[in-house]
Amino acid sequence: MLVVGIDPGLSRCGYGVVRQKGRVTEAVAAGVIRTDKDDPVPQRLHELHTEMVELLNDYQPDAVAIEQVLFQVNVRTAMGVGQASGVAMAAGAGAGAEVFEYSPTQIKKAITGWGGADKEQMSQMVQTLLRLPEPLKPVDAADAVAVALCHLAHAPAASRIQAAV
Amino acid sequence: MLVVGIDPGLSRCGYGVVRQKGRVTEAVAAGVIRTDKDDPVPQRLHELHTEMVELLNDYQPDAVAIEQVLFQVNVRTAMGVGQASGVAMAAGAGAGAEVFEYSPTQIKKAITGWGGADKEQMSQMVQTLLRLPEPLKPVDAADAVAVALCHLAHAPAASRIQAAV
Repeated sequence: MLVVGIDPGLSRCGYGVVRQKGRVTEAVAAGVIRTDKDDPVPQRLHELHTEMVELLNDYQPDAVAIEQVLFQVNVRTAMGVGQASGVAMAAGAGAGAEVFEYSPTQIKKAITGWGGADKEQMSQMVQTLLRLPEPLKPVDAADAVAVALCHLAHAPAASRIQAAV
Repeated sequence: MLVVGIDPGLSRCGYGVVRQKGRVTEAVAAGVIRTDKDDPVPQRLHELHTEMVELLNDYQPDAVAIEQVLFQVNVRTAMGVGQASGVAMAAGAGAGAEVFEYSPTQIKKAITGWGGADKEQMSQMVQTLLRLPEPLKPVDAADAVAVALCHLAHAPAASRIQAAV
């Protein structure tokens, strides 16, 4: 089973491609799609959509897992992140993948066992779970990998067995 | 100058196509793109994006004007509307049109002269401005036409003159 995790954002949108086959979970790719703060928002959303469609076309994932956008103190940022997540969701559905949303708490709990885990703990567990020689950078890419791992932890055992055959 | 106005929404996304040539402003088309509430949100956003791309491809507007999403009492609805507006913006930029956002107050003020106008006043002024025999229905389509008319009122005189040549 191949999962693309997404940490949505307009300036920086993290993605992490994770494959699970039998008991082995491995990171296939991770990175950040950036758009220029000086460009108009519609242009940036279009670029994000185009790059996301290309990414999903390259990897053909079974599932796309996106971190749910919660309303923070900065309402303007939340709207940008919400628009970016909408564009990413549309790209995911357009690529024929099943799209899932997970809250920050669900993701932290799935990775560290505790919904209140801090960034350091998350980074360390992502490194451990994927047996990486060093912490994954940048942080948006690591966060996106965590979303993908969260989906694998939540995916029904049946579909994981099926994917492993 | 051809403008597509958009009243963004996930269940109902209104659109209104308005042409201004010289002193004549006319409604070319108006309607609502609907998505099924029972379908998953990513699928609905993908459908909205696809239909919006087709609409813009059909009309090739010079500008796309979108009503800005403000945070209402219902945070879950605001997020859906925000995601829909993000998808519409991406489609607009992808179609090569300039994309503009106007607040509900700006739109009301441009159409009726007063930022606190109610739905009845707005509907009546849209009918008057476009010399329609009866009020435009459904309301989402009329709202979208109002956004397009707001853009024409804000567009610099120079570009209106240029478009009229």
